[in-house]
Amino acid sequence: VAAEICSIRSARVKAARQLNRRAERQQARQFLAEGPQSVAEALRLPGAVTELFVTGPAAARHAGLLQLAVAGGVDVREVSDAVMAELAQTVTPQGLLAVCKFVDVPLAELAAAAPALVAVLANVRDPGNAGTVLRTADAAGAGGVVFAGTSVDPYNSKCVRSAAGSLFHLPVVTGVSALAAAAALRAAGMVLLAADIGGTRLDELESAGQLAGPTAWIFGNEAWGLPAELTALADEAVAVPIYGQAESLNLAAAAAVCLYASARAQRAAGK
Amino acid sequence: VAAEICSIRSARVKAARQLNRRAERQQARQFLAEGPQSVAEALRLPGAVTELFVTGPAAARHAGLLQLAVAGGVDVREVSDAVMAELAQTVTPQGLLAVCKFVDVPLAELAAAAPALVAVLANVRDPGNAGTVLRTADAAGAGGVVFAGTSVDPYNSKCVRSAAGSLFHLPVVTGVSALAAAAALRAAGMVLLAADIGGTRLDELESAGQLAGPTAWIFGNEAWGLPAELTALADEAVAVPIYGQAESLNLAAAAAVCLYASARAQRAAGK
Repeated sequence: VAAEICSIRSARVKAARQLNRRAERQQARQFLAEGPQSVAEALRLPGAVTELFVTGPAAARHAGLLQLAVAGGVDVREVSDAVMAELAQTVTPQGLLAVCKFVDVPLAELAAAAPALVAVLANVRDPGNAGTVLRTADAAGAGGVVFAGTSVDPYNSKCVRSAAGSLFHLPVVTGVSALAAAAALRAAGMVLLAADIGGTRLDELESAGQLAGPTAWIFGNEAWGLPAELTALADEAVAVPIYGQAESLNLAAAAAVCLYASARAQRAAGK
Repeated sequence: VAAEICSIRSARVKAARQLNRRAERQQARQFLAEGPQSVAEALRLPGAVTELFVTGPAAARHAGLLQLAVAGGVDVREVSDAVMAELAQTVTPQGLLAVCKFVDVPLAELAAAAPALVAVLANVRDPGNAGTVLRTADAAGAGGVVFAGTSVDPYNSKCVRSAAGSLFHLPVVTGVSALAAAAALRAAGMVLLAADIGGTRLDELESAGQLAGPTAWIFGNEAWGLPAELTALADEAVAVPIYGQAESLNLAAAAAVCLYASARAQRAAGK
């Protein structure tokens, strides 16, 4: 580990700090992952981390992670608390921040892998929701997540944080339209299910055995739902049943119920 | 509607604004609900709203809600945008804000109702998570939600917003320990299931028919999980299975999968 950087005017710190802006991230094809959980998951993916900033106390707390970084050829830089506060987007930074290479893959690569379960985010704007769906898709054993249309940038710091490391676990696609994603996944043999409050009830579909095959779930915007042309393209519009008085479910909660219904049905069918 | 209030020093505005602090809410036993959705749901519960602040543009947009308020004897006050900005906790206030009476009920009242499904939040600190669980519990047809132990105040503005009106839909209990809640719900004939990453798999419990009876789910803190004495007290510790590489699920996502598993099993069993 090199000498501690105490100046926020250091060229390295300035370059990393710029990655808090989407345009700068896209130009550098790099982003920031904050906190021990995200950093640990990033370090487990060979070549993903190029640089690691750490405060003195965090270096002592996470000695194992630092060893892993050094062993992996990562450039580790000790920084003061003030520098970390400049770099981090959280109110109480946890003292570890990694500069990572973009991990997204082309849509064609995801489709070619013929995954059994995919989540497509169509114009999902809230980074917390999008990151939570990514984490849930990972937990449910999905083979990929597509950030389509005007969805939030998967490398947005709040999205990375909500994903809790899952960005480094499964293929993520970004920069494509939802229609292109739907077409490619259908061509790869997947059934397209559009989450829609007016659709067929999820439990009816499950009972009818219609969740057992390879499935791409399409989730729409928090406020406006899915564009009509996307719902029309889907094999089925599907609703999580509402048994109480709530008008709807939060997007990430609905996605959890849908993705786990597919995971369960696919495993019950032995796929 | 009385004349527009343009001063943030108005006694009414000052009194309402104080309700953004928990101690003031508890003293007045009143809280604030912001935005058309929460206000509409509050107005549907007779006697819940005591006062309604509205900007001119919002009054024009939501004439139906205003009529409902006036018909219900609610004190409606037009306010300037500046006054609304003082009162509201959102960055872009939607022009409607209701002063509401506390709606929580005693634990004994919830237990006496012998609900089929209840969610107990044990030390859940994040208002967004807690509000989302409340909304999901409502959607899943639960008969109540308990904010136990050191859980966030259900009347916290972010929690109210995340609950999207569900605070006015089903019985909510607050100010009790998780152990007291668990004991009362068990005495009311409910099975206690503790959501715990190390527990029995949810799908195994479902296949074994163990989700069909009256059930209280206990969800723990986002970082620390459940206290050991609470897990020990539960009839079963239950885990949402992780099929991928994610370490765990977000609390609200896990709660969605658990509550919907119960809702489905209870309906399949004809309860």
